[in-house]
Amino acid sequence: MPTIQGTRLMADLRRLAEFGRYKTGVHRPTYSKVDMEARHWLAHRMTEAGLDGAMGVLYGLELARAFAEDFACTDLAIDVGAWADEEGYYGSLLGSRSFCGEITEADIDAAENKVDGKKLREALSEAGLAGRPRARLDPKRYVGYLEAHVEQGDTLDSSGLRLGIVTGIVGINLYRLTFHGQQNHAGTTRMAVRKDAGVALVRLAAAIDRRFPEVAGPRSVWTTGRITLDPGAPSVIPGAAEMLFQFRDVEPERLAVMERALETLVAEANAQGPCRCELETISHNPPHAMSPIFQDALESAAERHAPKLHLRLPSAAGHDAQVFARHIPAGMLFVPSIGGISHHFAEDTKEEDIVLGCQAFADGAERILRRAA
Amino acid sequence: MPTIQGTRLMADLRRLAEFGRYKTGVHRPTYSKVDMEARHWLAHRMTEAGLDGAMGVLYGLELARAFAEDFACTDLAIDVGAWADEEGYYGSLLGSRSFCGEITEADIDAAENKVDGKKLREALSEAGLAGRPRARLDPKRYVGYLEAHVEQGDTLDSSGLRLGIVTGIVGINLYRLTFHGQQNHAGTTRMAVRKDAGVALVRLAAAIDRRFPEVAGPRSVWTTGRITLDPGAPSVIPGAAEMLFQFRDVEPERLAVMERALETLVAEANAQGPCRCELETISHNPPHAMSPIFQDALESAAERHAPKLHLRLPSAAGHDAQVFARHIPAGMLFVPSIGGISHHFAEDTKEEDIVLGCQAFADGAERILRRAA
Repeated sequence: MPTIQGTRLMADLRRLAEFGRYKTGVHRPTYSKVDMEARHWLAHRMTEAGLDGAMGVLYGLELARAFAEDFACTDLAIDVGAWADEEGYYGSLLGSRSFCGEITEADIDAAENKVDGKKLREALSEAGLAGRPRARLDPKRYVGYLEAHVEQGDTLDSSGLRLGIVTGIVGINLYRLTFHGQQNHAGTTRMAVRKDAGVALVRLAAAIDRRFPEVAGPRSVWTTGRITLDPGAPSVIPGAAEMLFQFRDVEPERLAVMERALETLVAEANAQGPCRCELETISHNPPHAMSPIFQDALESAAERHAPKLHLRLPSAAGHDAQVFARHIPAGMLFVPSIGGISHHFAEDTKEEDIVLGCQAFADGAERILRRAA
Repeated sequence: MPTIQGTRLMADLRRLAEFGRYKTGVHRPTYSKVDMEARHWLAHRMTEAGLDGAMGVLYGLELARAFAEDFACTDLAIDVGAWADEEGYYGSLLGSRSFCGEITEADIDAAENKVDGKKLREALSEAGLAGRPRARLDPKRYVGYLEAHVEQGDTLDSSGLRLGIVTGIVGINLYRLTFHGQQNHAGTTRMAVRKDAGVALVRLAAAIDRRFPEVAGPRSVWTTGRITLDPGAPSVIPGAAEMLFQFRDVEPERLAVMERALETLVAEANAQGPCRCELETISHNPPHAMSPIFQDALESAAERHAPKLHLRLPSAAGHDAQVFARHIPAGMLFVPSIGGISHHFAEDTKEEDIVLGCQAFADGAERILRRAA
């Protein structure tokens, strides 16, 4: 088994966190100056380790170093990738989709930063990447794709578990619900004759809140992330209202059941009136299953390094692994997030869990490569 | 009885509607070029009618002309006012509050347009009004204040009535409700451990929707005019949420009952958790009663011109009359709004109702003045 060096891994993690340090966390917008400095630093670390110049992430870097240092593993090869813009400033999972051939040059021409509107071409040029040929996946070159990540939820942390073997990445259904009423004066319009689009929205949102626990699966989640009342003034009855609603599950059948429940609630709202409710699908992102063989290998490694302290579970967040799963077998390993906090500067994971996870990841990677050899 | 000329009144109304005409309505922002052109045109019409140069509104203008043309009314005097910014771009009921001595020079220095942020001083200067001394109410000069207005609601129109005698102007309680939850990832955070501020808001808004019909009076109204979820992204559980909620009634006791009901719902929400709900009073505008003597006079005039087709009712919207009611006796007369529509370009009133209302208004004004003489 290639042996990772926890001290080296943690030192690299701490050094990387200096690029764009902000409060207790890190802020590195895609292709910004600090983002590119961090990527160049990583590439340099890869070169130091006697590896290719491709950029990498630190778990991957440590695995590659551990494999290179293990004489028994000279026949096993690992490429390390650090995908740009997984969070999707310029487009969801941009780097991995580009690598997997899912992004055209026209897509790149059209892409803009969703926050400040900057063109992707301009950002690439400022980052010194203009004209650089894009790296492309050669499926014949790889046994599969492995990714490690903090769980971002609290399933592991709240159960005292140390490793999670991802069974699949959830599908996400996202909808826009629009309510059409009649804008009017909030003083002079009697309650009996109002067509208050805001009240219609609140009633439907409350109906979802009551109904969805009955139709959801044990790991389903649903969220109303945005509500807008038009015109949004204290003394005006809203003439229109809009909400963004999404739900997630790893089972396609469960997603279908939840969608039918939503459609029924909308139909009931329209039958009751007086406002009209319109249901529009913004996106259906299907679930992606992880390779069962990879799951078995990762589970065996997890059992060796953290006996009985591991769990198979779906990933409720999107990851680059879902892009690769469309092209080659893919697998993912989770380590706990303290308190389940994610996307916040308070996000953290215990150092011993980071090191343990990396060792199990290396062990699992070896098992997968040996099985395929 | 001074006799109004319906043809002259309607011609002036149509001419006035040319200033700032937009679609089927009129758009004349306070102190804008078209607003000032309209005011100067009005002042000119007043001068033509042999009246003072003070600006006036057309009902008032027609009354002043009718009184001036009636030989029996030479002992009865009417001043006509056209108050600026009743809708409150620079501050609620700005003109009448200035006239009644409720606005200081420091208030004017500080006031900004709520839409574009323009300083009131700058707007006054552009309108050619900089340095002009402000007109001031002399309470000893007046028997009282009368105002006519379209109802803005549908009480008269839906009942086939033609005149409304206003008993009082409703009080308005306005609140900000803030919900404090925990922002987190909408995929990875299990439903059971969420502190979703948006869900807390929806539950409270739905509880108001169920509870308020039980505690409200027959003419009470309540409205959630604005809802904001923070950060308002489809895949983020809202960590904070805010709603603006108001209710109106003409009875102070009813307002108190509704406030207690709201406080109880907030306390219940906080007892249930997991989010904290904070209730903050933005404003308590008390109800203002119209003079009972003025109501009697207007009712007698209404009975003469529209027998049995009139009604005493509260005004659910704010009016300049409520400012005057704090200083001198005040009264108001309503004419029907077609379909109860207001603050919309579709707002309209039948020509015969406009003319009838003006005649009853003149008759009522004479009765009030004769009683005081």
